[in-house]
Amino acid sequence: MKEKLTIVKVGGAIVENHDSLQKLLDHFQQIDGAKILVHGGGRSATALAAQMGIETKMVNGRRVTDAEMLRIVTMVYGGLVNKNIVAQLQARSINALGLTGADAGVILSHRRPVVTTADGQSVDYGFVGDVYSTNGRVLANLIESGITPVMAPLTHDGQGTLLNTNADTIAAETAKGMADMFDVSLMYCFEHNGVLMDADDESSVIPHINAKSFQTLVAEGVIQGGMIPKIENALDACRNGVGCVVITNADNISNTESGTVITL
Amino acid sequence: MKEKLTIVKVGGAIVENHDSLQKLLDHFQQIDGAKILVHGGGRSATALAAQMGIETKMVNGRRVTDAEMLRIVTMVYGGLVNKNIVAQLQARSINALGLTGADAGVILSHRRPVVTTADGQSVDYGFVGDVYSTNGRVLANLIESGITPVMAPLTHDGQGTLLNTNADTIAAETAKGMADMFDVSLMYCFEHNGVLMDADDESSVIPHINAKSFQTLVAEGVIQGGMIPKIENALDACRNGVGCVVITNADNISNTESGTVITL
Repeated sequence: MKEKLTIVKVGGAIVENHDSLQKLLDHFQQIDGAKILVHGGGRSATALAAQMGIETKMVNGRRVTDAEMLRIVTMVYGGLVNKNIVAQLQARSINALGLTGADAGVILSHRRPVVTTADGQSVDYGFVGDVYSTNGRVLANLIESGITPVMAPLTHDGQGTLLNTNADTIAAETAKGMADMFDVSLMYCFEHNGVLMDADDESSVIPHINAKSFQTLVAEGVIQGGMIPKIENALDACRNGVGCVVITNADNISNTESGTVITL
Repeated sequence: MKEKLTIVKVGGAIVENHDSLQKLLDHFQQIDGAKILVHGGGRSATALAAQMGIETKMVNGRRVTDAEMLRIVTMVYGGLVNKNIVAQLQARSINALGLTGADAGVILSHRRPVVTTADGQSVDYGFVGDVYSTNGRVLANLIESGITPVMAPLTHDGQGTLLNTNADTIAAETAKGMADMFDVSLMYCFEHNGVLMDADDESSVIPHINAKSFQTLVAEGVIQGGMIPKIENALDACRNGVGCVVITNADNISNTESGTVITL
């Protein structure tokens, strides 16, 4: 029987607020067995850019990452957010080690080519990486030596360039890359109780979504915006051996019985 | 016989310039055997602070690190400088992994108490750490698995707070912490050929300094400023089992025959 591994992805809204981060780390501490934390940090990146007089440009909810914005996300994701989480997990006696995809060559990506959007617009996202290889063995070695990896949403192209990569994708790719060695649970956690039938009603959690009901819910407009790529990532993880994928409230990460369970 | 380990400390002037960094990494690549790179980044921190409208305050050549400056050095040292070096070493097929002292609990420090300077001034350096414990075993495990650690000048207090720590000190403390497991060479490299008898003459390298001649050279004013704590760190490393300490030009790091050799 394979060892249990829980991968928790937590978004910017939680990690960038002192109180909610403390609560999240307290819950993370309570998870038994091997674990990995993957974090975002977009709001802090946008705030730093503003403080530096640099405009943040988003297309379809994704950050356009020119050379200056790449410097900012490298500082915020790889430095500020990552190292503060590491220090605060160390204070909880969790032997955390912060990584980007470049560290120990964990995640390789290709720079995204210029894309044409649905409305015919041509978009160059800049220094944004689409993952093509994850070295789960390196992460497994760290875990075996008692380390808890904390992963920032940055990858590299293997040629010396860092690339900004969506944190949901980092979490799914890491889960996929570990699935042959561990019994992996992937938990996307955020400030809501799960995927909601009614965005204004936290009790309207959809308990279970599969590939088919996902299509229907998107067509009906129940699932929209950033939730679409999140569930696509989740389904991709299911297709690649990840046993359990849950979208849930950050308060419930030590309890897989709550939230929305995603299956094929 | 213990395995050879070379620890190279490189200062901000070199790592913050694209061309000199590339040259340094090319030389670093040529060093045989186990190795660790320790970097600074002060100039970039000062530049970012200025861009954010924050004043940098130095006392006796050391940065005063209030909460805002701690955020800046965490971003610059732990993120920008560290991750770019890691990505560029990966491109040279060196399996680099970037660390602060908080990562895997490698270096613990105490926040420096308020100090009284020689001229009777009371100085609170803020979030600055004085190292009291280095876990060389963790670094040795990483090295044994083929990883080359790249260390940023940040430590932690074990209570969740990151602390700004001088890179020369990080290098010396790391060298000391590894000396019982490896035959350690510590190389402080910078833009000069070594410790110079005449600051304007690069050919006036002092080939050898020991604890006694150091005192004389300081008294004569030949050695001054930031070179004093650097050589104090070097002598401290010698006293704690580090076999070879050299202060040399960044172009000569794969050649221990040049520069200034420090011994007891």
